[in-house]
Formats: sequence, C-alpha cells, structure tokens
Amino acid sequence: MSASAYQQLESVFTRLYRYQHLAAIAGWDQAAMMPPGGNDARGAAMAELSVLMHATLTDPQLNTWLASAGQEELDAAQQASLREMRRSWQHANLLPASLVEAKALAGSRCEHAWREQRKANDWQGFLQNFREVLRLSREEAQLLSDASGKGRYDALLDKYEPGMNSAEVERIFGDVKTWLPGLIRQVMDKQAGEQLLTAQGPFAVDSQRALGVEIMGLLGFDFDAGRLDVSVHPFCGGVAEDVRITTRYRDDDFMQSMMGIVHETGHARYEQRLPRELVHLPVGQARSMGIHESQSLSFEMQLGRSPAFLQLIAPLVKKHLGEQGAFDAANLARMYTRVRPGFIRVDADELTYPAHVILRYEIERALIEGDIEAEDIPALWDEKMTAYLGVDTRGNYRDGCLQDIHWTDGSFGYFPSYTLGAMYAAQYFATIRRSVPDLDARIAAGDLTPVMDWLDANIWSQASRWETAELVQRATGEALNPAHFRAHLQARYL
Amino acid sequence: MSASAYQQLESVFTRLYRYQHLAAIAGWDQAAMMPPGGNDARGAAMAELSVLMHATLTDPQLNTWLASAGQEELDAAQQASLREMRRSWQHANLLPASLVEAKALAGSRCEHAWREQRKANDWQGFLQNFREVLRLSREEAQLLSDASGKGRYDALLDKYEPGMNSAEVERIFGDVKTWLPGLIRQVMDKQAGEQLLTAQGPFAVDSQRALGVEIMGLLGFDFDAGRLDVSVHPFCGGVAEDVRITTRYRDDDFMQSMMGIVHETGHARYEQRLPRELVHLPVGQARSMGIHESQSLSFEMQLGRSPAFLQLIAPLVKKHLGEQGAFDAANLARMYTRVRPGFIRVDADELTYPAHVILRYEIERALIEGDIEAEDIPALWDEKMTAYLGVDTRGNYRDGCLQDIHWTDGSFGYFPSYTLGAMYAAQYFATIRRSVPDLDARIAAGDLTPVMDWLDANIWSQASRWETAELVQRATGEALNPAHFRAHLQARYL
Repeated sequence: MSASAYQQLESVFTRLYRYQHLAAIAGWDQAAMMPPGGNDARGAAMAELSVLMHATLTDPQLNTWLASAGQEELDAAQQASLREMRRSWQHANLLPASLVEAKALAGSRCEHAWREQRKANDWQGFLQNFREVLRLSREEAQLLSDASGKGRYDALLDKYEPGMNSAEVERIFGDVKTWLPGLIRQVMDKQAGEQLLTAQGPFAVDSQRALGVEIMGLLGFDFDAGRLDVSVHPFCGGVAEDVRITTRYRDDDFMQSMMGIVHETGHARYEQRLPRELVHLPVGQARSMGIHESQSLSFEMQLGRSPAFLQLIAPLVKKHLGEQGAFDAANLARMYTRVRPGFIRVDADELTYPAHVILRYEIERALIEGDIEAEDIPALWDEKMTAYLGVDTRGNYRDGCLQDIHWTDGSFGYFPSYTLGAMYAAQYFATIRRSVPDLDARIAAGDLTPVMDWLDANIWSQASRWETAELVQRATGEALNPAHFRAHLQARYL
Repeated sequence: MSASAYQQLESVFTRLYRYQHLAAIAGWDQAAMMPPGGNDARGAAMAELSVLMHATLTDPQLNTWLASAGQEELDAAQQASLREMRRSWQHANLLPASLVEAKALAGSRCEHAWREQRKANDWQGFLQNFREVLRLSREEAQLLSDASGKGRYDALLDKYEPGMNSAEVERIFGDVKTWLPGLIRQVMDKQAGEQLLTAQGPFAVDSQRALGVEIMGLLGFDFDAGRLDVSVHPFCGGVAEDVRITTRYRDDDFMQSMMGIVHETGHARYEQRLPRELVHLPVGQARSMGIHESQSLSFEMQLGRSPAFLQLIAPLVKKHLGEQGAFDAANLARMYTRVRPGFIRVDADELTYPAHVILRYEIERALIEGDIEAEDIPALWDEKMTAYLGVDTRGNYRDGCLQDIHWTDGSFGYFPSYTLGAMYAAQYFATIRRSVPDLDARIAAGDLTPVMDWLDANIWSQASRWETAELVQRATGEALNPAHFRAHLQARYL
C-alpha cells in the first residue's frame, strides 16, 4: 500500500523539523558561543540551510499532496495538522523568490547601516535605505493581500499572529488608549510618595546566575532538556526537546537578569511542554508570536512581578545576593512595579509598555496602508509620545524612531504581538483566579501548580491544534477581552 | 557563458562544506553542551543531514562533471582540487547504500552493547554482535579492493591515510618491533633509580582551565576563531574558521588536562591555518588522519613533553596551580616522560604507545584479510601484549581487546594513523633541528617561531595540495623514515 498524501506531507514536514533543529542550534551557538571569526562561515552555512528549507517547502509536489490530502479521510487531529501544514506552505509559496531575496537584501543593508546610524542619530541616512525596505514591504503586503483577500496590513499581521486582524487590534488598542494615559498619571502620582530602597551592588555574576537557576527550577524548567547561557540580546532558542534560554548580566544591576530569566523561562516551558509526539509537525508547534509572548508575560508580569511571587523568592535573592533591606519582599515588589515613562520600549515598565506598542502599531499600519510616507515618521512619533507618555522626543531619533530593529528589516506587523501577549496573559490569570481564589497565598507559599497546570492543560499541550481565537475561547471561556488587562493593571498599580 | 564542469563541482563541494559546518557544530554541541534530553532529536537531525550530504555526493550529475572536468584545461592547483574531489566522491559512491546502512546499523548495535559488555568483561556477548560488524567490514574491504585494485586491508587503510599501504606499514612497524621492546626495558631500568616528586592536589578546575588557556595562547591558538570547552572524551571539532577543542578536568590530576590541551591545540592550529581561500574545497582541507595526528603529536610529544618546553611553562604551572617542588621544570619533564607498560592504549606513555598500535594493526589486518576469525582475538592479544610490553592480559577482556571503540563500529584501518603521526612528527622535528641547531634554547626562551613557521609553511598551508608521500618528501626531503622516531626516543629517554 502506498503512503497517503497526508503521510507524504508528514514525512516532508518531519524532514523540515530536523533541518529547523540544525538552524536553531546553529543560531543559538552564533549568539551564545561562537567566536567572532566564525561569523562569515556560519552565515554562509545558515543561508545554505535556509535555501534548502525554502526549496523543500516550495517543491511543487507539496501543492499536489496538500490538495489530495484535503480529499482523504482524516480525523480531526489530522485535519488540524493539515491546516497548519497549509499555512506553512502558503508563507513560503505566496511570494516570488525574487521579492523574498530583494527584501532580505534591502533589510540586511538597512539593518547593518542602522547600527551606526542609530548611534549617530542619523535619521536622514537611515531614510536612504529604509525607503526601499518600505517599498518592498508594501509590495509584499499587496501580494499577500491579493492572495488572501485580507487587507494589506492584516496580511502582514497574519505572519506573526495568524487569525488576528487590524479591526480587532484597532478595537482593543482603541480601548486601551481611552484609559492608559490617565492611569499612568494616576499611578505616578501615587508612587511619588512611596519609599523605595535601592539595592546596593555589586552583584557578582556567578551569584546572579545561581539565583536565576534556582528560580528556573522553581518555575519548572527542565534542565535535562535545556540550558541557561549568556548573550547580548536575551532570547529563548534551541528546540522543544532542548530549549536554550539566555540572559545578560551587569554587576551593578540584578533586576534585569533576574526578571529576564523569568520571562525567558515562560517561553521555555511552553516549548518544553509542547506535545512531544506532535512537535515535529506544524500542528504540534507553538501557536503564534502573541501566544508565545503570553507565556513569557504570564511568567514575568502576571506571576514574576506579583507581590506573592516576590515574597516567595525574596529569601532566594538574599541567599544569593546577600542580606539587605532592598531585598525585602515589599521593596522588591515596589522596585518591579515602578512606573516611569521613558524613551525606550525594551526598558519600559509593565504600565507604559503598551503605549510604546500602540504608537508603533499605528505608525506601521499607516505606512503599509500608504497613508503616510517614511518621512512622516518622526513628527508622528513626537506627537504620539507626547500624547501617550508625556515624553518629548523631538530631534532625538536615536531614542525615538530609530530605537527598534523591527522596521529595519521590514518586520512590519510584529509589534502588536507584545501587547496582545500581555492581554492574553491577563485573561488567563483572571480565569485561573476565578477557580483558585486563594491563588496569591498559594504562590507565596511556593505552590505554583494552579498556574502551571492551567497553562499546561490549556495552552502548552494544545500547541497549534486550534486557531488562536478558539484556543483563547476554549481556555478562558471568552474571546480576547482587554478588560482583564485593565483590571489587572488597576488592581496591581492603584 | 555557462559554468565549466569544474566550476559546477566547486559549487557542489562548497554546498557540502556548508552542510559539514552544520554537522560539525551540532556534533560539538552534542558532546560539549547538549543536555541529555536533546539526544534523540539531535540524532534524528544529524542523521537527516548525513542523508542529505550522501545524496549530494552521490548525485549522478557529479560523475558526469568529474569526467568532463578531467577534459577541461585546469591549472595545477585545480588539478589537485579535482583529484581530491574525486577521492571524496569515490568514498561516497564505491559502496552500495544497502551495505553502508547495514554496517551503520550493525556498528551502532555493537557499539551500544559494548559499553555495558566492556564493564562486564563480557567477550562472548560482544562476539555475538561483533561477528556481523566484521562480516560487513570484510564485504566493504572486498568491494573497495575490487574497485581500486588495492589489497583488502589497504583499501580500508586508504580511507584514513590515503596513499598509505600495508607493505609500507609492515616495513615501518616491522622495524619498530626489532628495537622497541628492548628500548622500553632499557628505559625502565634507567628510570627505576630516578627521583620523582608527585604533585599534591587538589588542582582547582578553574585554575587548570586558566593554565590551559595561557598555554594555548603561547602555542598560537586564535581565540577569535575557536574555543576551549569540556567533554567526556577530549576532541578537536568545529570548523576551520571556528575550531572547538575540548578537554576534561580531574581535581586530583592536572597532567592529563594540561597535555591534552597541548595535543588538541596541535590539531586546532592545523585547522586554523588551513588556506582560508580553499578551505571550502577538499583540496583545502586537512590531508589525512595521520597528518592530523602528526600535528597534535608535534605539539604534545615533540614540543610539549620536551624539557625545553616544560622549562618554559613551569612558571605558568606554578602561577596557576601554586608553588611546589613537583612543578620544577626538571621534575615536570620526569613526570611527562615516565615509562610504564600498561593495559590501556589511551593512558600509555610516548614509548609504549606504538606497541599498542602495532598490536592492533597486526590483529585487524589479519581479521580483514581473513587469516584469523573474531574468536582468535583474545589469544593473539595476550600473546602480543606479553611479547611487546610484558603485560599479562589473560581473561581481562575489559582492559584488553574490549578497551577500544574502533572495532565496535568497524573502523578497521584507523589505528596505524596514530603511530604514523608520531613518526611524521619526529621527522618534522629532525628537519627543523637541522636548520635550527639551538632549537631547544629558543623554545625554553619562549621563541616557538621556528616550529610554528615550519609547520605553517610545510604542512598547514599545504592542506591537501599534495598526496601524503609528496607532502612529507617536500617538507623533510625524504620519504617517511622511522629512524627519526627511533632517534628521537633514544635521545629523549636514554
């Protein structure tokens, strides 16, 4: 008996998963281990692998099998699997290779020059390269839109957050804009009178690492199937069977490495708990960027910065970093919930972070839809920073519209994932709290099972079995509802 | 103008080099970084890559291009390149896939069971699996012999040491056998009266590592293009642009990690100094296993264990491991030249090591030629260990014929490389000493340039441009001549 079309597809996607394994390990190594001299050879090897993976996914035979498999008798799990295979296939096949190549080239050129241009505050120089990136991204959006029937920006959004659309984002972010600036002011007024002890360093890197490892253990990280290392930009990489998270240490600051580790551990546990028997197929892999971010933010924001969790780990902080008043639980909680509007997104606190994301979303959507041009960015940036955060960015491109890497290589549509993730996380915890009213007391006492069991059952084990909207509906009983996010912020900060 | 056949071949071998990069990094990671839970997924990913590389190298198109390129006008460098491409191609194409697969399977089964069988001293159990490995290796040897016109054992030898043949090995090892046992007895008598201070541990792992790193720097290791890490079995891996060496540390012994690092640094510098513009092609890669071993043994045996080098590094040993009499240069030299016949090859000293190799060569050659059967190994082993080293191994399979991994997976033909490497190294240094009479004084004073410049000019930069015999002839002015090895041992040990 010959293999069914569906079986043929499984074997191709299994092969792709193995190639992806090699790409993931080589990528992790490049960021965490590789000496600088290896960079060119590594770049060439990884590019060769990308070509191979793209060729595998654009083999015309796949199209035939996808069509035939649709006619075969498949159970519900296989149908979901086929749906996700088709999505992967579409991402690789909708765009002509010439556009993919041109965009990669323009993005790489723009990103490379941007590293220096940002330092030099050189917006005009950046524009020279960026216009081409924007032009090609608009072309990409148009082609994806033509093929999918979605709007242009929606077609890009769909790459990172399948099923999401800008009408929905507009509704959600529109709501946030009505209350966020006021809430920020209210919280800042409240915090103005707060006593806050500053922790006295230096904090030895080895001690910070040992603290991080102990916290990872507490959060259930499986060290038999993963590692903690160091890189310039922290990330969660590797493969589901062997998850590699990284952090960075500064000996004058422990806060960033500690909470960064909690954040990456959220990503890691999602990967480590994906259904092992399906993880070689798209349906067994993480749902989306937004859902991935919802895991890291469940860990960092919902759990990690909660007074209960900080009460639980305060003794560990003292054990590894030494006894001082700043490490008392109440003070740690104040440190980790301090609200201060600032220029830089990645340094932002929980409350001001969404303002950074909404600003970027609004600008990038207008760019892709053709409502504004690249030249219009700085004025809009200044206007929105003033309106949302009361921060004056005029003339400061470096800490303004030149701060992020995303637009340099044309990753339009990515930014919303961050705040959608924060909202999903708030909604999960509202759900958990409904059935576990004494959640904080249990967390403070070291019992994290209500959180972990819920995430495991509702998110991790579900992988990509359901579309995002259905996943969230099944998990929480309702569609994405930003009211939970607002209620969470009010409860924590007011 | 369309690409020439030779250019087509270059592009295929460049692609293979990039795949090989991924395999090397994944392999290094598996040995030095990977948590145990990642093993199955890693194994599957690496096997997939092997399949891909084999498919690339057995694409029928290659055969056509190899034939056409032979008709094209090529310069001498390109002709050498084509010769090495043809050799790679032959290794992949001479054997039917069914035999390769059967041998991999039988080898993997035998090797896996051997790990426990060795501990249990279970020769009979080992035989059950080993007979099949031997049968398939004989089949391989026969096919390679039919295709190449070489003898059966020679055909296997050629996999590891191209151009070498057993008549030559026989001549060389036959000579060694006439004087080695006597020399060993003489040296042991001499050393019986020597005073030797034992170093007092513990030796902190961090300190051993710092010592190793400083010695690597002294030996010219380029840390911009490589790393030092830890693995159970030390090795030199990675790629020429990014060489990864490993060692292992014991806190009650510094000798092994220190000299192990010197050894692997020899392999590493060869790789780091291969001609960078050719390293993506077979002609730009290391010549053979024997020549590779001649680099590690130039570093470890010729240089590393010499009184001059130990005089140079004695202050570093004291700096990192603390002041004690055992670290005086003269005592270090006695420690690193102590001769004691023993059971285990990998623990053997410089003088008894060749006896271990000759024994294995004689047995494996007879096995492949069909002169003996697997059952005959233990009796022969006992007989030869008594004759060459005066060691009684009867009934002790664990520390006898079950000690090595090489035969478990059918790597017959590999063992001679070790001692050929030692002989090449002795011949190199005899050559260097002829033009640098004060070599030892210069080494002791920290000037390693006479050694490094000679190796760079004569070996490293030559890569696979010449066949091994011609490489050695050009470098030293004569064919491989074991008299240099004997003279070296006599000079050092008598």
